[in-house]
Amino acid sequence: MTTPLRLGIAGLGTVGTGVVKIVRQKAELLAERAGRPIAISAISARTRDKDRGVNISSYAWEDDPVALATRDDVDLFVELMGGSDGPAKAATEAALAAGKHVVTANKAMLAHHGQALAEAAEAAGAVLRFEAAVAGGIPVVKALTEGLAGNDITRVMGVMNGTCNYILTRMQSAGLPYDEVFEEANQLGFLEADPTLDVGGIDAGHKLALLAAAAFGTRVDFAAVELEGIERVTIADIRHAEDLGYRIKLLGVAQMTGRGLEQRMSPCLVPRKSPLGQLEGGTNMVVLEGDQVEQIVLRGPGAGEGPTASAVMGDVIDVARGFRATTFGMPAHALAAARPARTATPAPYYLRMALHDKPGALAKVATVLGNAGISIDRMRQTKHRDVTAPVLIVTHKTTRDALDDALKAMGGLGVMDTPPVALRIESV
Amino acid sequence: MTTPLRLGIAGLGTVGTGVVKIVRQKAELLAERAGRPIAISAISARTRDKDRGVNISSYAWEDDPVALATRDDVDLFVELMGGSDGPAKAATEAALAAGKHVVTANKAMLAHHGQALAEAAEAAGAVLRFEAAVAGGIPVVKALTEGLAGNDITRVMGVMNGTCNYILTRMQSAGLPYDEVFEEANQLGFLEADPTLDVGGIDAGHKLALLAAAAFGTRVDFAAVELEGIERVTIADIRHAEDLGYRIKLLGVAQMTGRGLEQRMSPCLVPRKSPLGQLEGGTNMVVLEGDQVEQIVLRGPGAGEGPTASAVMGDVIDVARGFRATTFGMPAHALAAARPARTATPAPYYLRMALHDKPGALAKVATVLGNAGISIDRMRQTKHRDVTAPVLIVTHKTTRDALDDALKAMGGLGVMDTPPVALRIESV
Repeated sequence: MTTPLRLGIAGLGTVGTGVVKIVRQKAELLAERAGRPIAISAISARTRDKDRGVNISSYAWEDDPVALATRDDVDLFVELMGGSDGPAKAATEAALAAGKHVVTANKAMLAHHGQALAEAAEAAGAVLRFEAAVAGGIPVVKALTEGLAGNDITRVMGVMNGTCNYILTRMQSAGLPYDEVFEEANQLGFLEADPTLDVGGIDAGHKLALLAAAAFGTRVDFAAVELEGIERVTIADIRHAEDLGYRIKLLGVAQMTGRGLEQRMSPCLVPRKSPLGQLEGGTNMVVLEGDQVEQIVLRGPGAGEGPTASAVMGDVIDVARGFRATTFGMPAHALAAARPARTATPAPYYLRMALHDKPGALAKVATVLGNAGISIDRMRQTKHRDVTAPVLIVTHKTTRDALDDALKAMGGLGVMDTPPVALRIESV
Repeated sequence: MTTPLRLGIAGLGTVGTGVVKIVRQKAELLAERAGRPIAISAISARTRDKDRGVNISSYAWEDDPVALATRDDVDLFVELMGGSDGPAKAATEAALAAGKHVVTANKAMLAHHGQALAEAAEAAGAVLRFEAAVAGGIPVVKALTEGLAGNDITRVMGVMNGTCNYILTRMQSAGLPYDEVFEEANQLGFLEADPTLDVGGIDAGHKLALLAAAAFGTRVDFAAVELEGIERVTIADIRHAEDLGYRIKLLGVAQMTGRGLEQRMSPCLVPRKSPLGQLEGGTNMVVLEGDQVEQIVLRGPGAGEGPTASAVMGDVIDVARGFRATTFGMPAHALAAARPARTATPAPYYLRMALHDKPGALAKVATVLGNAGISIDRMRQTKHRDVTAPVLIVTHKTTRDALDDALKAMGGLGVMDTPPVALRIESV
């Protein structure tokens, strides 16, 4: 097959520019690997005349991404605009309706419309793939849907928002409070225009929902992801966790249980010496567990021009080679509706609270935990000069329901002014 | 496509049995993921009537694997016999000549005959893939040839022999000498029938040669792999390395340089806090570096029934899906002859020597190094009660040639009875 695969690229930000550079600079290598040339027919972006360090004058230009996606000389539409709806979705739908293949880095769009778009691709006999949408340069969608396709996947975990991991790592290493490091990250341009996408866990939650669909053969169900951001994590929690042998990570966990599918994105304690615990800075890590393969850990850059463009090109080359992969690892019509688990798998929890420095306060708290059936693994009251005493408790395994009941009851004891901080300790 | 993909499986050891179990127990899941059923037509192994914990009575039996490989009711030949030549090679050649696809876990066969077999597959329009041959359950061949296909790969590294990593880890944690841990590993059944395949680095060298071909688009060139086993690593080296902030690993490195292709499998020092340095026990790790993706680290079980069968099934499902992957990531005829680098990329080295406890001995050694243009980063003489003084030297970057000259000159100084131990310090 020597007919070129012709791309239409929408979006010329960092990633789009990176893709154009690779196609131009590695034409010979790509043709050898794919067995046919890969060429760019046309491009669409917000502004045409901007210096991006790459010459795009030889490609046709379209102001309208929908027009780009449906051009006769485009075989594969590369969607790099972003946004869950609007032009990205309209152009993707138009491309699929016209029988074009689509490669996208758009996690928000797929988290919200993944099932409908996968069905549209299937109906058109076209490929829709999204390696670049999850964990940047790490080929995790491929590993999950192809490399580990002989497994019943049991659990998928990941640190998939580099900004949050940067913030948590920096708080720890520099001993700086959250607000200060947040501001620093903002100055460095690490944060999304709407920072809650990062620190609220939404961006990472989108990625987790996509991985869960690919792992368990279920329809993407972002609405069912239990989301908790890192805004409440304090430098005190980070230090206490360290003392106890843990690190705090914004960790995504998707797990198939007898009670249904669990999807959680929340700050968790993980053992300091585990691969997840040792992950520093902006790097991403995904852990895949299957009944045959046991555990595979993948680590790599979660963002940036080269890594994300690398992931886009992996999908593009697959299409050029004639691989007709399904979007989520099995036919879209066969994906089952996910039955969300009502509660999370029991786990130990880390609790931090500030107790009034009065006799009997600690006993009251311990009694509440005991009454809720929660046993205490470790408890520490640290030195204080304040009117409140900082108390740390590590529980044995408990359900979140029992814990929430206990936390509520603690609030009514009159021994603390603010509710306790409760963080899950994930076994990894 | 609902025609089943029909397998002929040769070899029913651990891995073969694992593959049969997966095909039997996950028939529905596999059919959904592959888009068509995957069935077993026939089996061949040394003995038919052996309890393997799985019922094989419904499959046709062939005593001769060549007959199995060419049966009319076999679409894909699964080669799990092992051995670089003999029946495995004969049956693989026969399968490809008959236009059957082949999936194999046989690193020795591909290390020696990979190019010829890849060309035979290409001529027949058949797939020949080998995910299970490298790093067990880690889908590294797929990551390299597909996920990272948009990269110029610059370096591939790996700890890919679990037995050696077990031995080195155990020497360190239990403080036991090599011979004792070797015997222990032998008792545990961790060693190949010919243990030099493991501890001599040959098995891991086979894997490295295959990864190098896939990474750099070169013909497999196992003969050019510089091999050094772990037999000479002492508990003293492990402890000294630890003190200096390093761990000793049997590390494979394949690197494309201006001087040609480097392929080395040897005990190296790596930073204790790096992912490679932290790898313990039988787990494997592969590091892939590309010009776009920077660095991807993959970690997982390097052997065992489930993980290796998982890798075999990944390849089988790809074939069932109609993916027609080339063996080494590009057409076999386009793979270039590797031009082996005459010398390794300069690196710092760790040197340990036992000097006669006489004035001027150390000065003589230092002079020899200086004359060879090798500067010293750190030097330590440790406490001793012996007639020889243990001396450790960490050099700055030097070529292996300069180092070998210096080591030879040291031998002639009359200040040591045995030649120094020299281990490369790899930057990871």
